[in-house]
Amino acid sequence: MEATLEQMAPTIGVFDSGFGGLTVLRALVERLPAARFAFLGDTARLPYGSKSRRTIARYAAQSAQFLVNEQGAEFLVIACNTASALALDAIQDAVPVPVLGVIEPGAMAARQASATGNVLVIATEATVRSHAYAEACQARGLRALEKACPLLVPLVEEGWTDHPVTAEIIEIYLNELRAEAAAQGLQPDTLVLGCTHYPLLRSLIERAVRPGVKVIDSAESAAQAAVELLNGRLGERVAPAVADADAQTEVRCFATDSVEKFERLGSRFLGQPVGHVELVDLGG
Amino acid sequence: MEATLEQMAPTIGVFDSGFGGLTVLRALVERLPAARFAFLGDTARLPYGSKSRRTIARYAAQSAQFLVNEQGAEFLVIACNTASALALDAIQDAVPVPVLGVIEPGAMAARQASATGNVLVIATEATVRSHAYAEACQARGLRALEKACPLLVPLVEEGWTDHPVTAEIIEIYLNELRAEAAAQGLQPDTLVLGCTHYPLLRSLIERAVRPGVKVIDSAESAAQAAVELLNGRLGERVAPAVADADAQTEVRCFATDSVEKFERLGSRFLGQPVGHVELVDLGG
Repeated sequence: MEATLEQMAPTIGVFDSGFGGLTVLRALVERLPAARFAFLGDTARLPYGSKSRRTIARYAAQSAQFLVNEQGAEFLVIACNTASALALDAIQDAVPVPVLGVIEPGAMAARQASATGNVLVIATEATVRSHAYAEACQARGLRALEKACPLLVPLVEEGWTDHPVTAEIIEIYLNELRAEAAAQGLQPDTLVLGCTHYPLLRSLIERAVRPGVKVIDSAESAAQAAVELLNGRLGERVAPAVADADAQTEVRCFATDSVEKFERLGSRFLGQPVGHVELVDLGG
Repeated sequence: MEATLEQMAPTIGVFDSGFGGLTVLRALVERLPAARFAFLGDTARLPYGSKSRRTIARYAAQSAQFLVNEQGAEFLVIACNTASALALDAIQDAVPVPVLGVIEPGAMAARQASATGNVLVIATEATVRSHAYAEACQARGLRALEKACPLLVPLVEEGWTDHPVTAEIIEIYLNELRAEAAAQGLQPDTLVLGCTHYPLLRSLIERAVRPGVKVIDSAESAAQAAVELLNGRLGERVAPAVADADAQTEVRCFATDSVEKFERLGSRFLGQPVGHVELVDLGG
């Protein structure tokens, strides 16, 4: 039994409230092309960003149980900043497999990138209200200033990822954030994208930041951290997979609603067609 | 028993997926100051605008049952365009009291306003996809052209109701809609605001429409239709109330989540403080 398991490609569960987390899945697939992936978007109940901790924890725990109990995930990546910020403990309590969120890897990457120790974070309302990034940064000796940018997700979903209005709105948000940093005497040199939708705005955001400011994509950071954790835990089951360029990645996508919208918009996030998305009912 | 009921102010249930429907409640309170109102915002599961008909029907029926069975509503106003468009039958099947949506009154007001018979409708994605306005307009001999404007709700919730960026986005949406109308040889003279958030953008929208185009607020239209229906059904229990300027309106607000956000933003929609919002669990 052990031997068979060792030979099998590991199944990695990736969870998000919507399909934004496909940016994390994309970064994982690039690094682990021979792994099997089950992605669940809890689209019937999105967005988590404006909901309470209690509700988010309940939804996220149900979703994690689906991935582990019904899809056989041996490792979970919570590709949702809001759920990582507010419900990581609740998810870990709900399932018997290792769970990785996106906040800690993002803060770790910021620590590596920042020379001044002052970091800016943009995210959804609930992520910012939780101050999860500020706390994770503080634990690494960084001072983080967070700002909610609630218009950016709808702009991405409208497809305006290279639109002058989006550039203008990013400029407004970053100007407000820079004014606040200046008022506090901070000299930020790093900007963390604390929402899985934001990588699609990366080129506009990079044009809007001051010269020398590094942009950290928490999707990339989380994927990198997942690979390191998996290599440690699963050893040979993962390591050879990374090296095999011809490996066929198996990706199954599930959604609790709006399969049509998921299929239509998802490919922008995944960077390849998402294929058939299966509808699941979590009883919500 | 009959006599007592006759003397009591009627209880009117108002339902929305969020707090946008408070614009309908506001229009109702102005017309029925002595009535009692119970408002439920299903904030744990908003927005309905991006969800499927099946899911919306389930959520809306549960919400309607709460207002009727637990709050004693004798009449329901569905102050949510998406639920009115996709789930009015499901709601009517779920409760034994009369149910009024916002679509039919909006189409009726458009019929009265339009001379050319060509009408524009702006709404959420799901409302537009349902073509409920187009059908209700067609039944009255109107030709309606509908457009989803998914950025307007988040702009209102961000508080940018008088912001140049919002004016710019409205201009983009209306230009696209006018180009489509011109391509079809239509001469629209009426614009229906098919979302309860949009009344807060009314002044920006009125500046963006062509001279002579009338703007129909479906919140106002629905409140007017509700008063007419109530006068017919409840007679003296309602009519004297309208005349009594000193009457104290009783408004109780309930939400399934995010009470804090409801209390903070709701007053903008209601035009007066919403007071204490009670949290309810519909089991979702």
